[in-house]
Amino acid sequence: MENVIPVNEPAPEAETDEKGPSKSALKKAAKEKEKAEKAAKRAQAEEAQRKEAEANDVSKDDYGDLPPDGTLPLPMFEDDKVPFVELSELPELFSDTTKLDEPQGPHVILKARVSNARTQSAKLAFLELRDRLDTIQAVVAASDTLSRQMIKFCASIPSESVVVVHALVKKPKDPVKSATISELELHIKKLYVESRAMTQLPMQVADAERAIPAEGEEESADGPIVTLNTRLNNRVIDLRANLNQAIFAIKFGVEDFFREFLKSRGFTGIHTPKLLGAPSEGGANVFEVKYFGTKAYLAQSPQLYKQMLIASDMKRVMEVGPIFRAENSNTARHLTEFVGLDLEMAFNKHYHEVVSLLEELMLYIFNGLKEKYKRETDLLRSVYKVDEFKLPEAGKVPRLNFAEGIKMLRDAGEEIGDFDDLTTPQEKKLGALVLEKYGSDFYVLDQFPLAIRPFYTMPSAETQAKYDSANPNAGYSNSYDFFMRGQEIMSGAQRIHRAEYLEQRMKEHVSPVDPNSDGLRDYVQAFREGCSKHAGGGIGLERIVMLWLGLPNVRLASLFPRDPGRKTP
Amino acid sequence: MENVIPVNEPAPEAETDEKGPSKSALKKAAKEKEKAEKAAKRAQAEEAQRKEAEANDVSKDDYGDLPPDGTLPLPMFEDDKVPFVELSELPELFSDTTKLDEPQGPHVILKARVSNARTQSAKLAFLELRDRLDTIQAVVAASDTLSRQMIKFCASIPSESVVVVHALVKKPKDPVKSATISELELHIKKLYVESRAMTQLPMQVADAERAIPAEGEEESADGPIVTLNTRLNNRVIDLRANLNQAIFAIKFGVEDFFREFLKSRGFTGIHTPKLLGAPSEGGANVFEVKYFGTKAYLAQSPQLYKQMLIASDMKRVMEVGPIFRAENSNTARHLTEFVGLDLEMAFNKHYHEVVSLLEELMLYIFNGLKEKYKRETDLLRSVYKVDEFKLPEAGKVPRLNFAEGIKMLRDAGEEIGDFDDLTTPQEKKLGALVLEKYGSDFYVLDQFPLAIRPFYTMPSAETQAKYDSANPNAGYSNSYDFFMRGQEIMSGAQRIHRAEYLEQRMKEHVSPVDPNSDGLRDYVQAFREGCSKHAGGGIGLERIVMLWLGLPNVRLASLFPRDPGRKTP
Repeated sequence: MENVIPVNEPAPEAETDEKGPSKSALKKAAKEKEKAEKAAKRAQAEEAQRKEAEANDVSKDDYGDLPPDGTLPLPMFEDDKVPFVELSELPELFSDTTKLDEPQGPHVILKARVSNARTQSAKLAFLELRDRLDTIQAVVAASDTLSRQMIKFCASIPSESVVVVHALVKKPKDPVKSATISELELHIKKLYVESRAMTQLPMQVADAERAIPAEGEEESADGPIVTLNTRLNNRVIDLRANLNQAIFAIKFGVEDFFREFLKSRGFTGIHTPKLLGAPSEGGANVFEVKYFGTKAYLAQSPQLYKQMLIASDMKRVMEVGPIFRAENSNTARHLTEFVGLDLEMAFNKHYHEVVSLLEELMLYIFNGLKEKYKRETDLLRSVYKVDEFKLPEAGKVPRLNFAEGIKMLRDAGEEIGDFDDLTTPQEKKLGALVLEKYGSDFYVLDQFPLAIRPFYTMPSAETQAKYDSANPNAGYSNSYDFFMRGQEIMSGAQRIHRAEYLEQRMKEHVSPVDPNSDGLRDYVQAFREGCSKHAGGGIGLERIVMLWLGLPNVRLASLFPRDPGRKTP
Repeated sequence: MENVIPVNEPAPEAETDEKGPSKSALKKAAKEKEKAEKAAKRAQAEEAQRKEAEANDVSKDDYGDLPPDGTLPLPMFEDDKVPFVELSELPELFSDTTKLDEPQGPHVILKARVSNARTQSAKLAFLELRDRLDTIQAVVAASDTLSRQMIKFCASIPSESVVVVHALVKKPKDPVKSATISELELHIKKLYVESRAMTQLPMQVADAERAIPAEGEEESADGPIVTLNTRLNNRVIDLRANLNQAIFAIKFGVEDFFREFLKSRGFTGIHTPKLLGAPSEGGANVFEVKYFGTKAYLAQSPQLYKQMLIASDMKRVMEVGPIFRAENSNTARHLTEFVGLDLEMAFNKHYHEVVSLLEELMLYIFNGLKEKYKRETDLLRSVYKVDEFKLPEAGKVPRLNFAEGIKMLRDAGEEIGDFDDLTTPQEKKLGALVLEKYGSDFYVLDQFPLAIRPFYTMPSAETQAKYDSANPNAGYSNSYDFFMRGQEIMSGAQRIHRAEYLEQRMKEHVSPVDPNSDGLRDYVQAFREGCSKHAGGGIGLERIVMLWLGLPNVRLASLFPRDPGRKTP
């Protein structure tokens, strides 16, 4: 819940005027003086009492705040027989709960957050301890060796503080339903605060466990929810939610599967420059940087560089890195900085060799997610109420020609020209039609119209054969888009590998560019120096995560998202 | 070799004056006319001859330039029994050379660069074909089925062109010493040019196979070498050299081992933003970006974000990504953009848990390089004449306290204060002393003086105990540097994990920063929300590669290096 700050408090009344203090004012001042003296005395007495209590506190070395560097008191470690464990390890370590009935039963040391602390009585407090996805109940009970002062201390620890505890592991009388580890309970012997959280947090972790509404949708009926904006402003707390831990585990999984598959196919990881001397891809939507008295620009993709590396005989290259787009779009689908998964490869005979490899790559990622991230995927789908992502049967990815896609749309009543680009609603509609016909949320659209692709796209052989200088952008190209749930996740193509043809296409393109411009000169030169046939593609990492899980906003898949209005935290 | 353009050609003489053409001029003009007519006739005759020859050319379908999209002529593929192979596969495929004596012996199709083409006679040409590290000799010999025209065509292919050949694999009479695959030879049957290189390349690949001199060193005595600057200007050709292919194979190896090791230790890959709302680390050396009418800044490291993610319970995080430093240094050690290998982790008791893990990580990388990149490493060392990188015996990395390092330097005659930062020569000297004493090119210097480390560095427990507000930066800190060949490759530390202490240190630091500034507010807030003890470090990927191989310039380890004076190609 967000902080509620009372804004209608009455202003304090004016108590003096120009004539000097009145009788009643003097009387009031005297009263206040008396009150202050009493309070001071009381505080003094309390302090004396506290000191005496502390001196008599049998537990005084067993709890407290650690020093700033977090050094644990030596006694905590003197007994090396007590293992330092992770909360998540407990169920497996103590799966045989019958052994937990011994009075001198097993002790552990562990670190966790206090997600909740409360007193039952002066003699008993309960803490809920949390460590990522796991929670457990901890009991602090007064005894000859555990003081009431310690109970008071434990019960007053603010939520989200980090504590180190030394505890006896026991089996609770009844399973603790509120905890994920319900068959075990910790009986605290020692407790130290490593990091004390502020008492009034700007939002609660629990707030972040709920779905955010999709664009245009109403907020959930069951009570107000913390807005996406508030969550992103308080991202450090927000990310502690299981929902977010799951999203970023999956994001890492996608990246890892991407690398793993491509590495096994002989790809080399590369790093192309993000600072460029001139805008290279058209010039629009590029961020400008001050560079030692000159200007530089942030790379909008590794496109030109990964092609130059093919010309350098690197053969198969992949890059995972930031992509910068200065597009002033404030939609649920756009970020100004995102993670690009890029690849480029030389091929032997036909660019479909590359398309097939890319299809295999995506299936490898999807199957990996199904297998290794089921818990995380299920959690997200249950909260966001999203259908399971349907993979093609027998691993045969539907690959349609663009013309075929247009026909399907027309048959479904859509009005669209042969060479028109698809609008977002048309893409979604085609996705639905493909799902219906082929039973797959994933498909490939091949042979896009030449006119709607970038200048470096290879026209198809048929288009080259029918070339007409009066209409040089007619026909199709060896280019493809990959779709998930009816939204594009990857764009790719065979690229032009010969300098003279590239120069021709640069000039003839719908948006012509100058082969001799600062941003393109070195690129064109690369092909003059000899270059193999090649094709490749680029994938938005956040988009795959969003579409795999059916999230309503791409910002949810970025740790610290950037858009035209957001550059913090 | 660089292009040599003759600059002293005489200017053409003036042939007319104001009086009109002279007799001799008219005579000359008539002669020239006659000459031109003769030339035209000759050309006509040659063209007719060429056409006739082409009509009679028995090989006319077996060679030529491919169309712009590189589509191979169908006959090339009609016989599916001829495999499309890689040049590097040949030695293994045909290890039993006795089988190569059959006249109808094995055929292959393969793609390669022509690194050299020459005619022996009108009936015989030799091509040297290259594919990355491998070269082979190819023979084009006239026969009933192979025309002289085809030989002429093959012999005139410019170096660095990409060709597809269909050839018979044979055993040469004598091993071809000039080729890496010396026990085999290709007898060309068909040859198509996929990409024709320009005839006058700005430099040759062979030029890039030689060492560049170290800073301050003289150029090699055996002839002029192509300067580093020329190589970097023509990086696409430069990178084709074996030397460079080896460097970037190793660079990928380092990154891959880094990920592999950390993943096995439970680290999650993250991507922190590169666009920041405000400079966060001091404000100096930061690039400014135009951001939708406001300003943004390029991240100088993921430092603050990776710590915030520890506060978000991500526990162990790693990032590989670009680092931007607007430092106006034009040395052999500085880049304005490089690849950072970053990590951060929560620990249980003591930050030496992290130092130990980092030592293991580095040994894992070094041993991986020794094992899997021996060929590449040996190649580089032979060219740059560098000693093998010495690893500590029995895997025990020398870990010295800073004070110990100072003592060793003093014992060796160096004048240096207890808390002075080491100069570069002092670092190198200490590296030499450690190598002498411990036999290792890799060591760790621990417990650096507090005053010379960033504000977020955790003072050591002893320093905290002796705290004196009059001299708050005295003493040591829980921080460390890792060294290779006497140069720092990683800097790291335990970080302050408590907000109030962090704020104190921010104010007390030698270069104070404001906890409430735009760049730091969210960072400080993260610790108010509770955070575990943590430590980490950052490594420059290019620096590891440079120091592993003993390269004289860090630019050699960047595909497209960036420095204050270079932002292209």
